[in-house]
Amino acid sequence: MLCLTQSTNPRWVDIALADLPVLLRDHAHCEMKAASTALSLAARCSEHNDVACELALLAEEELRHFRAVIEELARRGITLGKPQTNAYAVELLKLARVGRYGAPEDPFVDRLLVAAIIEARSCERFKLLIDALRARGEELALASFFEELFPSEARHYRTFVDLAGLVKGDHAFVRRRVDEMARAEGELVGRLGSAPTMHG
Amino acid sequence: MLCLTQSTNPRWVDIALADLPVLLRDHAHCEMKAASTALSLAARCSEHNDVACELALLAEEELRHFRAVIEELARRGITLGKPQTNAYAVELLKLARVGRYGAPEDPFVDRLLVAAIIEARSCERFKLLIDALRARGEELALASFFEELFPSEARHYRTFVDLAGLVKGDHAFVRRRVDEMARAEGELVGRLGSAPTMHG
Repeated sequence: MLCLTQSTNPRWVDIALADLPVLLRDHAHCEMKAASTALSLAARCSEHNDVACELALLAEEELRHFRAVIEELARRGITLGKPQTNAYAVELLKLARVGRYGAPEDPFVDRLLVAAIIEARSCERFKLLIDALRARGEELALASFFEELFPSEARHYRTFVDLAGLVKGDHAFVRRRVDEMARAEGELVGRLGSAPTMHG
Repeated sequence: MLCLTQSTNPRWVDIALADLPVLLRDHAHCEMKAASTALSLAARCSEHNDVACELALLAEEELRHFRAVIEELARRGITLGKPQTNAYAVELLKLARVGRYGAPEDPFVDRLLVAAIIEARSCERFKLLIDALRARGEELALASFFEELFPSEARHYRTFVDLAGLVKGDHAFVRRRVDEMARAEGELVGRLGSAPTMHG
């Protein structure tokens, strides 16, 4: 799906659906973290007003999703709770080249592409959740809710890749770098799939 | 104005209007920073879904303002640029009690009140800019733009104070703490007023 090179272990969806309160709390924090990442990238777009605007728009959409997940939690009588450590995101960020933003090694472009890959993986996982809930005939309102979010994740993947191309001015470079990162992400995902969190 | 105990030095408005590119770039970064602060507070509302939602809504509004300022920069052919160090916000944050969020000394409530006071001061400064531009008959479109933002700053001040009251469950405590912080902010502002930034 999208750029992904490896599918999530099928056991994950059962583990995740067996603990919906943990999954939904983690989902809320993931939307918030996605907004926060987009903001920290926007603030660094010192020479690209258009990229900063697109990132702010994307953050606004993530925040609307955050509020929708909070409403879902409230309907279930669950508080937001504290964020879980997201080992997946921490490992993925290690793929990004380090150094000053705007330096030739392009850590800024890499940060955009890490964000793109997280969106792609979230998209795949929403599909797994939707299909499992529909197959079981359970929590159909929740399945519909995930279906509303699903296209945004795919769109955000493309937005991040397009913005990386715009900043780098070299779409072929960005395509090669997405492929490299997606292969490394596939190896990482092969070691995961046992926690009831969005990227567990 | 609002909770403020001391007015901005009148020289500031002339200094700020003499360097509109610096002022507007700083204004954009301030909107972004305000959104980012609201998000970091929302992520810590582990037991208050309603407060987390209000903070997310407020961040969305700050991001719409950020995009509006970016459009204003673009009309003038100016890029966003790098953020300036905001000595005012750094000093003000020192007023907030330190410690774990949710601990009895209430650093979370203090962070909400620091955010409230920054909104109050921004509100006062927008009024100074609007009045000066109208009096000079210059940059009237920019004066109208600031007039659109002005009521939001006042509203955000009240939102932060109300949320502090909700979290603390003690509105009298919050009013006393706002007064204490506003006095300290007044002393701080007395030492400022010489840089062409929103809180310079």
